[in-house]
Amino acid sequence: MAEFFKNISKIQYEGKDSDNPLAFKYYNPDEVIDGKTMKEHLRFAVAYWHTYQGVGVDPFGAGTAIRPWDDITDPMDLAKAKVEANFEFCEKLGVPYFCFHDRDIAPEASTLRETNKRLDEIVAKIKEYLKNSDVKLLWGTTNAFGHPRFVHGASTSPNADVFAFAAAQVKKAMEITLELGGENYVFWGGREGYETLLNTNMKLELDNMARFLQMAVDYAKEIGFKGQLLIEPKPKEPTKHQYDFDTATVYGFLLKYGLDKHFKMNIEANHATLAAHTFQHELRVARINGILGSIDANQGDLLLGWDTDQFPTNIYDTTLAMYEVIKAGGFTTGGLNFDAKVRRGSFEPEDLFYAHIAGMDAFAKGFKIANKIVKDGKFDKFIEERYKSYESGIGKDIVEGKVGFKELEEYALNNDQIKNVSGRQEVLEAILNQYILED
Amino acid sequence: MAEFFKNISKIQYEGKDSDNPLAFKYYNPDEVIDGKTMKEHLRFAVAYWHTYQGVGVDPFGAGTAIRPWDDITDPMDLAKAKVEANFEFCEKLGVPYFCFHDRDIAPEASTLRETNKRLDEIVAKIKEYLKNSDVKLLWGTTNAFGHPRFVHGASTSPNADVFAFAAAQVKKAMEITLELGGENYVFWGGREGYETLLNTNMKLELDNMARFLQMAVDYAKEIGFKGQLLIEPKPKEPTKHQYDFDTATVYGFLLKYGLDKHFKMNIEANHATLAAHTFQHELRVARINGILGSIDANQGDLLLGWDTDQFPTNIYDTTLAMYEVIKAGGFTTGGLNFDAKVRRGSFEPEDLFYAHIAGMDAFAKGFKIANKIVKDGKFDKFIEERYKSYESGIGKDIVEGKVGFKELEEYALNNDQIKNVSGRQEVLEAILNQYILED
Amino acid sequence: MAEFFKNISKIQYEGKDSDNPLAFKYYNPDEVIDGKTMKEHLRFAVAYWHTYQGVGVDPFGAGTAIRPWDDITDPMDLAKAKVEANFEFCEKLGVPYFCFHDRDIAPEASTLRETNKRLDEIVAKIKEYLKNSDVKLLWGTTNAFGHPRFVHGASTSPNADVFAFAAAQVKKAMEITLELGGENYVFWGGREGYETLLNTNMKLELDNMARFLQMAVDYAKEIGFKGQLLIEPKPKEPTKHQYDFDTATVYGFLLKYGLDKHFKMNIEANHATLAAHTFQHELRVARINGILGSIDANQGDLLLGWDTDQFPTNIYDTTLAMYEVIKAGGFTTGGLNFDAKVRRGSFEPEDLFYAHIAGMDAFAKGFKIANKIVKDGKFDKFIEERYKSYESGIGKDIVEGKVGFKELEEYALNNDQIKNVSGRQEVLEAILNQYILED
Amino acid sequence: MAEFFKNISKIQYEGKDSDNPLAFKYYNPDEVIDGKTMKEHLRFAVAYWHTYQGVGVDPFGAGTAIRPWDDITDPMDLAKAKVEANFEFCEKLGVPYFCFHDRDIAPEASTLRETNKRLDEIVAKIKEYLKNSDVKLLWGTTNAFGHPRFVHGASTSPNADVFAFAAAQVKKAMEITLELGGENYVFWGGREGYETLLNTNMKLELDNMARFLQMAVDYAKEIGFKGQLLIEPKPKEPTKHQYDFDTATVYGFLLKYGLDKHFKMNIEANHATLAAHTFQHELRVARINGILGSIDANQGDLLLGWDTDQFPTNIYDTTLAMYEVIKAGGFTTGGLNFDAKVRRGSFEPEDLFYAHIAGMDAFAKGFKIANKIVKDGKFDKFIEERYKSYESGIGKDIVEGKVGFKELEEYALNNDQIKNVSGRQEVLEAILNQYILED
Repeated sequence: MAEFFKNISKIQYEGKDSDNPLAFKYYNPDEVIDGKTMKEHLRFAVAYWHTYQGVGVDPFGAGTAIRPWDDITDPMDLAKAKVEANFEFCEKLGVPYFCFHDRDIAPEASTLRETNKRLDEIVAKIKEYLKNSDVKLLWGTTNAFGHPRFVHGASTSPNADVFAFAAAQVKKAMEITLELGGENYVFWGGREGYETLLNTNMKLELDNMARFLQMAVDYAKEIGFKGQLLIEPKPKEPTKHQYDFDTATVYGFLLKYGLDKHFKMNIEANHATLAAHTFQHELRVARINGILGSIDANQGDLLLGWDTDQFPTNIYDTTLAMYEVIKAGGFTTGGLNFDAKVRRGSFEPEDLFYAHIAGMDAFAKGFKIANKIVKDGKFDKFIEERYKSYESGIGKDIVEGKVGFKELEEYALNNDQIKNVSGRQEVLEAILNQYILED
Repeated sequence: MAEFFKNISKIQYEGKDSDNPLAFKYYNPDEVIDGKTMKEHLRFAVAYWHTYQGVGVDPFGAGTAIRPWDDITDPMDLAKAKVEANFEFCEKLGVPYFCFHDRDIAPEASTLRETNKRLDEIVAKIKEYLKNSDVKLLWGTTNAFGHPRFVHGASTSPNADVFAFAAAQVKKAMEITLELGGENYVFWGGREGYETLLNTNMKLELDNMARFLQMAVDYAKEIGFKGQLLIEPKPKEPTKHQYDFDTATVYGFLLKYGLDKHFKMNIEANHATLAAHTFQHELRVARINGILGSIDANQGDLLLGWDTDQFPTNIYDTTLAMYEVIKAGGFTTGGLNFDAKVRRGSFEPEDLFYAHIAGMDAFAKGFKIANKIVKDGKFDKFIEERYKSYESGIGKDIVEGKVGFKELEEYALNNDQIKNVSGRQEVLEAILNQYILED
Repeated sequence: MAEFFKNISKIQYEGKDSDNPLAFKYYNPDEVIDGKTMKEHLRFAVAYWHTYQGVGVDPFGAGTAIRPWDDITDPMDLAKAKVEANFEFCEKLGVPYFCFHDRDIAPEASTLRETNKRLDEIVAKIKEYLKNSDVKLLWGTTNAFGHPRFVHGASTSPNADVFAFAAAQVKKAMEITLELGGENYVFWGGREGYETLLNTNMKLELDNMARFLQMAVDYAKEIGFKGQLLIEPKPKEPTKHQYDFDTATVYGFLLKYGLDKHFKMNIEANHATLAAHTFQHELRVARINGILGSIDANQGDLLLGWDTDQFPTNIYDTTLAMYEVIKAGGFTTGGLNFDAKVRRGSFEPEDLFYAHIAGMDAFAKGFKIANKIVKDGKFDKFIEERYKSYESGIGKDIVEGKVGFKELEEYALNNDQIKNVSGRQEVLEAILNQYILED
Repeated sequence: MAEFFKNISKIQYEGKDSDNPLAFKYYNPDEVIDGKTMKEHLRFAVAYWHTYQGVGVDPFGAGTAIRPWDDITDPMDLAKAKVEANFEFCEKLGVPYFCFHDRDIAPEASTLRETNKRLDEIVAKIKEYLKNSDVKLLWGTTNAFGHPRFVHGASTSPNADVFAFAAAQVKKAMEITLELGGENYVFWGGREGYETLLNTNMKLELDNMARFLQMAVDYAKEIGFKGQLLIEPKPKEPTKHQYDFDTATVYGFLLKYGLDKHFKMNIEANHATLAAHTFQHELRVARINGILGSIDANQGDLLLGWDTDQFPTNIYDTTLAMYEVIKAGGFTTGGLNFDAKVRRGSFEPEDLFYAHIAGMDAFAKGFKIANKIVKDGKFDKFIEERYKSYESGIGKDIVEGKVGFKELEEYALNNDQIKNVSGRQEVLEAILNQYILED
């Protein structure tokens, strides 16, 4: 077995004053907080696609990446090398999970049958590795957007043959996810949307998408896949409009088609901002509806209009994201998957480590800050106080459904000189800064 | 009774070559198309707030508007003058409807009781006018966002007294809408949202918003209001985030709280674009879910990030909007309400006429083009052909629920060399141009 | 010589009622308006990169395009085939010009010397074709952004070897543009910018960019290239920030470095909108500064945040763009280059024709409308009237520099009750609609 | 003399662990760093308009602010009270400067003569206060955008009377700024732009704007005003497009009209982001062109499209802003003016203190972090190393103008296998986090 990252040893925790870019400053995997290790709290995962498949292509330029497997030319040899590289990378980084699309781990062949055979071969190899490693599969998914056949959609394609093909592909991907012990299965509908309404039957497409997801639910049950099914919202890109626009839209869709009990959300930071929401907003909406499943950890550039998939380093975002996760009770099957790619200018192999370290440190620090915030309860207490009028008197009557418009009018006619109190946004932001700067 | 717009006579249809800015070029109210007059098809409405209350204030400058009622100083005299002005304006313009917020028609007093008395006085006057006019009330609504008491929300306020006040206000507004024969009642939650999640209990706020709407449903039933209840989505502005983000979000909210049978949408063009959707998208989503109620006709500036509320003059937008309306079967209780304001630089009284004429002509022409498109059926035929694989064979089996992943895999293994056909977006856009340029 | 588009004959003008997607509805190349043919007015050009090199790749999917040269595998054979295809395509379409990057016409080899040899071979072939065709070269340019060596910039690279390489490449590209009779030479700095200021010496980079352009000016003079040098602004994408942000920024840069006499602008519609300007704005800024050179004709999607490079079909944009061109005196060396790509879903060879026809018709119609607007002079007269206070009295004194703050204060103290007149935006928009709908 | 903020004592520095919202956690005004106090480094200023004139109005709601001067009704009494309040506020807060528009300090009367008399009266009062206070005037400016007369612009108005009025107003404002010892004079052209190109003579407007600024330069010289003249860029809002779009645009404008020696920039964070730049970008562009004058310290919300003018609390932004200021040699005449308003929901008088404290702490901490970054020199060293190829060999020849395209081609033909090195963005971001989290 080859060692691909020969210059890199296992990344160690060296603490906040370290100058070593190949060491953690904030992430100490074995540190125990509230009875669980940091590793267990954060459940980091490496994304197979960006880390082993990404080469730094962008719409105006060729790949720049220099990778230790660049000299392997046979597609299946390369696929096998990447399995090895994945376990080496995750182990050196101390990341407990990885995630993949079917087509990341094995290249597509000219027939579906042959493609599936290739998958089986790689899956067998991964299975071997899993036995001897602490690294596990967080989730699997299907790439039903990259191949030209999906040009007009997968389950929402106007072509029923494409729907069938996508179904076959998801079937297989669910099977291998089960076989590899994956804890979740993710749906991201990169082509489930439209380019122009002029040629689109939106109703049929949405009905078909629901039919497809119902088939997935049925099949998961049939094969005994107990993992969580997740949907990943994204509003646009690659298409003009994607049906899974944001958490609220997906939740409404699930409710309409009676699918809401079967799915949770896989929320990506950069997809949130593309939908003009904060990352925290999407997590909050998922949390209060009980559908916060997992996270694709990255960050966007709000001055750019596409999915930059940057490694997450903004401490405000990681803190507020972990705040929502902690308030939701922590991760169960989910985790923090780095759906992030090194910048095109960060093309050396070491950059893969640097970038993950940057992201892991940012989330580790964010978790600690958020945990302190939750423990201290300052924000909670402020909010409780702010809404306390609903705990007695007319507020309680409202919440308990004891009053209607007539009773409320009567009340209001006698209580129309209303006194509100400041929302204190600036104070709360200053307190957040104190937590961030001094935790 | 004063005549406010003395220089303006009833606006006439003069046809497309007219140079008269005070004449219609495309809108001939009495022209009959498919058994209904243009007036009946388009159901235009004047918005009380922009037309009589708007003065051209913006965040950096004072009002610029010159209005014929500028010398009236007593608030109730002014309110009465505006009733007169409204009927004069609508009649001269040939607009069959108007819409108002409670606070547009009568100024708020220092107590709710006194405010309601003022409302009653003005409502009585409007009622008088309605008797002698063809002009009718399209919808009424409540302004529960402008007064400082609503600083933190109305039904989503952390202060139960504010919830009660809003309830009392909506109760009264529903009553006067009923009394004035309003065909719909609209909810726009301009403060129903949050400024920062740091101080927000989103779950309680959403639950309370649902409680409020349920009370409204109950009260409408109780007083025998048969008009359609409408919700108007808007993603942001004035607040950072409003709960009624877009049609899909509102629909999901209604489904979650079991309110979906009672509400339809009042869709505003500029609110659509603020949510990063096209106007047509929002209409389409509403149409296919059977909740397309009414339209707030305006347009935004996609290079600016706020609700510019411009008069709608873009012929693409009016055409595609009317296409959706026609495909939905035309308006029933709804109509085209000009929720649009003259530019701050268009401050002369005549500009109110010019702007409405511009918008009415744009929609009249848009309707005619859309009607021809629907009649010709070119787009429909294209779409039908595009999705025909779902009408037989495996596609039909999918739609009819006869197959699952296993059957589809079997099918796909034998049908994996898939041929798609072009979506022809550019051709369809060129055809749309032909309709627009040559109708 | 192969015929690549066998099913397509020379595209004919059939007029506005034609149902034939392979015919012009508005563009009649030989129609004479004001002493020049439409062909001469519009000076359309085909973009080599999109038309022959584009395959429909996007960040989430492989190429979908089906092209008649797909079976040619040898890179130089393919390059030659595309030369043939280009002349066939332009001739069948009746487009008088084409544009290319050096790397579009000949593939890069492993050494610069070899690459240049390849270029020479293809250039010779193009030259042959030019002799026997009416088709000409509108402009040439260099692709100094696609190859990994340009990852950190070309003339703004932190690596002087890259600067040198880019210089060599532009030198060669200018030579072949001269040899092929190109009427302009374009600079687009897709990598001339930064990803993060944390690693950027902006001052040195800008100084170097100026040095580079000065060398280009010198070299053009040296070899006798009389064509116009053009800079194409774009604010972002592929990089976070590009130095040639917009026309105003580029013009300021040219002034600072004393380069303003040597360059004009090549303005792209979609680049304008990415910079939050209208297309017309960019053209206007260029026009009033005498630097309107040429146009990259396409359109963006203002609800998406990347360069969609759609074929231009919006009649408002084409009309207002041609209005600026006409007011600037028409094109001299410039033209309308379709820097536009068929949608990924429009992947059939015919779509290349359909899309160009859609764009050509939209610009032909836009030109005719704009020409009528200019001739009628309604807008001009309105503007003249609006600013007439500067033609006499205090306004004239201001314009002629006869007064300063003291004289103006004296004037204002006696003229402080100022009367403005409405800007009549809605009327002007309605008139524009009349021109568009009825020309 | 009334005390307005009776409950508030002078704000003290209590250090990072303080729970007191009315104390500084990071800003210790007397702390000496590099031979200057923090007060001298940061030169904070209070903005008269937001702090004393702002009432929390937004486009959909009335003012919410509760202010201790709310019961004063006479406009001049109110103006005088605000003078007192300003000195009390600045002194209690320990802010050494304030800034104003002419119309902030004295209300406009019905004639210009009377308005100027009012100004004189207030200026005399301010002058009295200045004598007995450490508080000083950072800059004065003119509000030539709020009054209806400026509906179509001030120096760019189509109405020459408006140009004259604006000139008279700026003349007076420069005089009082001089009289009050103001260290700068600012121009912000909120109406200098257009709403629609359909009615705009852009060339004349820009020429007039230049004429106006030249008159200002001349008059400053005439009266002996030695303060720095500043221009504040903003791309849009209130108008569709403002001519002073961003720093690069303004600098180009100044160069074109030969005004570049006379003006520097007053850069506002939120205006930067509205122009799709980072705050740091605008500061960097100003710095490398030697025109970084002063800062309007606030922050925007990148998910909203208008000027939210929030108090600056983002530590990344304050750090990177102060990094640019330090690299520019620190402030000379400029400072950090809080052009920021408390959120509409933060309507209590205390919120004015809380918000300024939040902003001052964020900038104090940002300054310290930035100062450490500059001292440590890690980033500088990285950048120096990155560009070192321009310090010898071919790079040096390029910089020194010794080579042209021919020499570079010769060089490149022999140096075409180029090796770049990673830009290390993620490492640099991680190091920045270390500075921020551990300084």
